[in-house]
Amino acid sequence: MQLFGERLMEAVKTRRTHVVVGLDPDYELLPSDVRAAHPREAYEDEAQMKAACYREFLNGILDAVVEDAVAVKIQLAYFEALGAPGYRLYEELVGPARSRGLLVIADAKRGDIGSTAEAYARAHLDNAGADALTVNPYLGTDSLEPFLRRAKEAGKGLFVLVKTSNPSSTDIQDLRLDSGERLYERVAELVSGWGRDTASPHGYSSVGAVVGATHPQEGAALRALMPAVPFLVPGYGAQGAGAGDLRGFFDPRGLGAVVNSSRAILYAYRQHPETSWQDAARRETQDMKAALWRVAGLE
Amino acid sequence: MQLFGERLMEAVKTRRTHVVVGLDPDYELLPSDVRAAHPREAYEDEAQMKAACYREFLNGILDAVVEDAVAVKIQLAYFEALGAPGYRLYEELVGPARSRGLLVIADAKRGDIGSTAEAYARAHLDNAGADALTVNPYLGTDSLEPFLRRAKEAGKGLFVLVKTSNPSSTDIQDLRLDSGERLYERVAELVSGWGRDTASPHGYSSVGAVVGATHPQEGAALRALMPAVPFLVPGYGAQGAGAGDLRGFFDPRGLGAVVNSSRAILYAYRQHPETSWQDAARRETQDMKAALWRVAGLE
Repeated sequence: MQLFGERLMEAVKTRRTHVVVGLDPDYELLPSDVRAAHPREAYEDEAQMKAACYREFLNGILDAVVEDAVAVKIQLAYFEALGAPGYRLYEELVGPARSRGLLVIADAKRGDIGSTAEAYARAHLDNAGADALTVNPYLGTDSLEPFLRRAKEAGKGLFVLVKTSNPSSTDIQDLRLDSGERLYERVAELVSGWGRDTASPHGYSSVGAVVGATHPQEGAALRALMPAVPFLVPGYGAQGAGAGDLRGFFDPRGLGAVVNSSRAILYAYRQHPETSWQDAARRETQDMKAALWRVAGLE
Repeated sequence: MQLFGERLMEAVKTRRTHVVVGLDPDYELLPSDVRAAHPREAYEDEAQMKAACYREFLNGILDAVVEDAVAVKIQLAYFEALGAPGYRLYEELVGPARSRGLLVIADAKRGDIGSTAEAYARAHLDNAGADALTVNPYLGTDSLEPFLRRAKEAGKGLFVLVKTSNPSSTDIQDLRLDSGERLYERVAELVSGWGRDTASPHGYSSVGAVVGATHPQEGAALRALMPAVPFLVPGYGAQGAGAGDLRGFFDPRGLGAVVNSSRAILYAYRQHPETSWQDAARRETQDMKAALWRVAGLE
């Protein structure tokens, strides 16, 4: 069994891309041909109609980005917002993404304790079959245990929120501790410790960190503080960060971080009315891939 | 429109109980007659069979506890662990619980940003129709905004994790800040601020706090620090805390906290083989109701 940290870094090297495509479906932003193909009256209710639109659109996106992405990140909230049909679609997307060779990150930001954390791990890593899950550290070590067990025993990964991309991440994450550190730096140390038993030959463990692209200085400092921790980096594109902001997120080999973009890829067709939505998504992914590859110092 | 803080305190006073029954279904612990009524071969797959068992069991629990509980807390993880059939069951339980006069708290511990937080609020408060949702504060103020909007405009509530009941809650929540406070105390101040615009005539806002019953001293200190914040208190019963630990969680009027018990109520029949599972759950709820009523200083 290959550990997740190794699978992720191998995938970056062999697929030659750091791009994670975020699947954040939004009915209002879907191409008009996708919406027209699924009229409301053909479905039992609105949620089933929207789920059918999302299914067609997201499978089309998978086809468009498969050559240029290393992973997809499924944002659970948009699926839950459709209720049970949305939840079913989430489960149905994991297989097709994995069979195309993409890693699947379930962006659920779950965090609970004991048997409840165990149920979340079962839901997303065992049953839905995602390769990795995002989790929230606020409840501490015992809330991570079911996920850590699957990292060791089943080659799964997790990404713990450390320093998120939103403006109010300062409210709690940046609080100064009596030790002089900021809170997110202490969380980073905890994350390093949680991953220690899952180090791979590439040097990266199966316990990653979410570090927002909107914080270039903090990202570089965290790269040094957590040398064995892979980063999942949100905030690129629609949230305002560019490739240049990410130089410090990579290690000297150009590894150590994968970077997510959701809306800028999914809805690229809105900026390029002359091209199809799939071509627009493909081109946006290719541009992002090339920009990151350069910034990571790889030819 | 009545605000949530008022609805909650009115319900405690008129129903004369602080008990929240946690709905944490676990197939292995279900009564044998419930399991026998739903043989595997009668369903398309195991998840649908388990969902049918949960449906029968949880509706039976609602009937058993309706006179003695003020709310139910639906633990999303156990429903997600069944995939789409579980998610559907969650949505199907909210209506019957509310029509019996119980408030419904969706224990989802969600926390995300911007349009994603909006999607979670839509999923649980609008679509599923829960009265309140548990949320994680790690991402800060902007992650709470969609929930705060629904608190003001739709009478919904939220409970923010402040000091949780698990042993590792010390890892992050108890960190000492350079101001001398512990982190959870700072979070408590933020929670007070988030609720300020939703104060009710009873003095309680619509933004509550999760404070574990396993921390009696911290609970009493937090009660003083957040006089307008209603508490949702987990950790009673199966996690080891008793009514005596909760004296300081109530205000001088005996209000201000509702207390959850999940397994000790749901599976009370396992301790009382002489009685039916519904009667055992009812009796356990009544005992807890009486013990809390006394400790809260109400006759």
